[in-house]
Amino acid sequence: MECKITLIPGDGIGPEIVGEAVKVLNKVADKFGHTFNYTKILMGGCSIDEYGVPLTDEAVDICKASDAVLLGAVGGNVGNSRWYDVAPNLRPEAGLLKIRKDLGLFANLRPAYLYNELKKACPLKEEITKDGFDMIIVRELTGGLYFGERETKTVNGMLEARDTLTYNEEEIRRIAIKAFEIARKRKKKVTSVDKANVLDSSRLWRKVVAEVSKDYEDVALENMLVDNCAMQLVMNPGQFDVILTENMFGDILSDEASMITGSIGMLSSASLGKTKLGLYEPSHGSAPDIAGQNKANPIATILSAAMMLKFSLDLDKEANAIEEAVAKVLSEGYRTVDIASNETKEVVGTDKMGDLIAANI
Amino acid sequence: MECKITLIPGDGIGPEIVGEAVKVLNKVADKFGHTFNYTKILMGGCSIDEYGVPLTDEAVDICKASDAVLLGAVGGNVGNSRWYDVAPNLRPEAGLLKIRKDLGLFANLRPAYLYNELKKACPLKEEITKDGFDMIIVRELTGGLYFGERETKTVNGMLEARDTLTYNEEEIRRIAIKAFEIARKRKKKVTSVDKANVLDSSRLWRKVVAEVSKDYEDVALENMLVDNCAMQLVMNPGQFDVILTENMFGDILSDEASMITGSIGMLSSASLGKTKLGLYEPSHGSAPDIAGQNKANPIATILSAAMMLKFSLDLDKEANAIEEAVAKVLSEGYRTVDIASNETKEVVGTDKMGDLIAANI
Ligand SMILES: CC(C)[C@H](C(=O)O)[C@@H](O)C(=O)O
Ligand SMILES: CC(C)[C@H](C(=O)O)[C@@H](O)C(=O)O
Repeated sequence: MECKITLIPGDGIGPEIVGEAVKVLNKVADKFGHTFNYTKILMGGCSIDEYGVPLTDEAVDICKASDAVLLGAVGGNVGNSRWYDVAPNLRPEAGLLKIRKDLGLFANLRPAYLYNELKKACPLKEEITKDGFDMIIVRELTGGLYFGERETKTVNGMLEARDTLTYNEEEIRRIAIKAFEIARKRKKKVTSVDKANVLDSSRLWRKVVAEVSKDYEDVALENMLVDNCAMQLVMNPGQFDVILTENMFGDILSDEASMITGSIGMLSSASLGKTKLGLYEPSHGSAPDIAGQNKANPIATILSAAMMLKFSLDLDKEANAIEEAVAKVLSEGYRTVDIASNETKEVVGTDKMGDLIAANI
Repeated sequence: MECKITLIPGDGIGPEIVGEAVKVLNKVADKFGHTFNYTKILMGGCSIDEYGVPLTDEAVDICKASDAVLLGAVGGNVGNSRWYDVAPNLRPEAGLLKIRKDLGLFANLRPAYLYNELKKACPLKEEITKDGFDMIIVRELTGGLYFGERETKTVNGMLEARDTLTYNEEEIRRIAIKAFEIARKRKKKVTSVDKANVLDSSRLWRKVVAEVSKDYEDVALENMLVDNCAMQLVMNPGQFDVILTENMFGDILSDEASMITGSIGMLSSASLGKTKLGLYEPSHGSAPDIAGQNKANPIATILSAAMMLKFSLDLDKEANAIEEAVAKVLSEGYRTVDIASNETKEVVGTDKMGDLIAANI
């Protein structure tokens, strides 16, 4: 099979980790007789440096003409308190928002599970995680506060800023369907998270999700308030299978969920739309503090490449080969520094981790 | 001193836990020579049953005419998937939103700390909590998505729901000032949490908080994105002193923060405005499943009464007496069932816990 993959190395550790994923993909191509043609584009800070904007329309066109997009990470100045001075559409992260919207990627899938090999790194007590946990967050990605109208204006001599959170039935229905479809192939439970005791958009969310659930009688539906969910994730993460939620709640809860696994350097994600074209990226950020030091963990990106093979290219066997290679290397005791413990056999750098995984394909 | 306290027992376990707090307050009155005059009002489900609305204007007037308000908890049908059918202003929780707005209680203070005696109940590993943690969330309570315009209408034959998130400079400034004032008396660090890489309201938030911080050169200001904060709370809660944030983020983060203490039945809260009049309530909910069973932990409510003495009535000595009595009873090994462990000397009911604390005043 021959296919076109757009690579977006991005900022910070992005280029390093995408490099390792390509190494592994090339090994897959060799072994299974495929041809992966790569095109690189710029997004984020590097694109601002080159073109003055975080993502050009030409770059989006290249993505649209490809079968799948593999992203490292964008952004860098997190924590910079002068951020609000920069026009929002000129910050590195705006590239990410633009690509999600332009490619119509309304469904963000973020698996969060506890690796047996990494239980030591999990911040939760063993009595809570003894049976493990394995959930996937299905986050709506092109609606809500992220893409609502916003305005900052002077009212009575004072600045006033407004953001809007809007959802319509269709936007809710399509993401709900994704969640139920995924749950059907897993533990058959959807926890829909909202704030229906306060928000109109959440009440519509609850109504539409209940309607969709009628077509999935084999899948259990539970509604949970977002504040309660933030607690339950810490207290009893094992209760969750599929968490379905809107854009901002999903942003917060998926970061919390990935952190309780203790292995945020290991978690992949997929952003999908109506067509096969998807965007795949690690759940973690661009970690500018360790960029270029051969310290970053490439596994989340490599596993994102596996998701890409599965969801966009229908190469299930090949995806499994990557997942097995990762499991093998971990079971042999190799770790990057972020997931190392006193049981680690050898702490390896970014490139060696990529080599080891590629060698096991 | 003579003062007027409005009691709002509310729903579920509310009446039981408020009853124990009154027991303790009466002991304080006796011992220190004060007269506390109580007036009870209805709010929540019980008010709906009686008056058809979750809070009457007359009840609000009684609160306004008093020195402080002590609340148990309201609500009950959490998890009911037919919620969205009930008009929002007719649900029990709407009483809480109305009282916050009508009394102008814009600052919600939620301490979250790790009790040494309760480390066993904390869900986080000891390596993370070994130095303890002690933070207070300062949540804006009368703005944002909670009180913005909202509308559900049909657009192109489809339902569409919209909520709005609005903040002006003044709303941000006054809550920021509260946070810095509190930090000044604590560990002198404010972490302001927003989503400035996406929201206009967050950018204004960051700008105003930075301005306010100039008047507090002794207090360190740090900005953090809300998704990152949800992670940091689990990974390294010890880094926080005062967390300052808007209404919805505060709702989510304060529940997460209280859960990582492992003692949500122990955490008090205060909602304050421009005047001395404040509303005090436990951080937990109405727990309808255990209502009337003498199982609820009254400590959060008793500690909320202590906060009331301190913030609304300027009775610091008396407040300390309550806090010390609670510490004493805990150190003697008495526990309600929610905080019991194998080291507990005696598991006691709601009323006995109240008796023990009152006896130690
Ligand atoms: C960078 C930022 C705009 C983005 C988001 O909030 O969606 C990130 O946090 C994520 O979760 O992918
Ligand atoms: C009951 C609900 C409306 C309320 C809120 O969201 O503010 C509660 O969760 C709280 O935190 O006090």
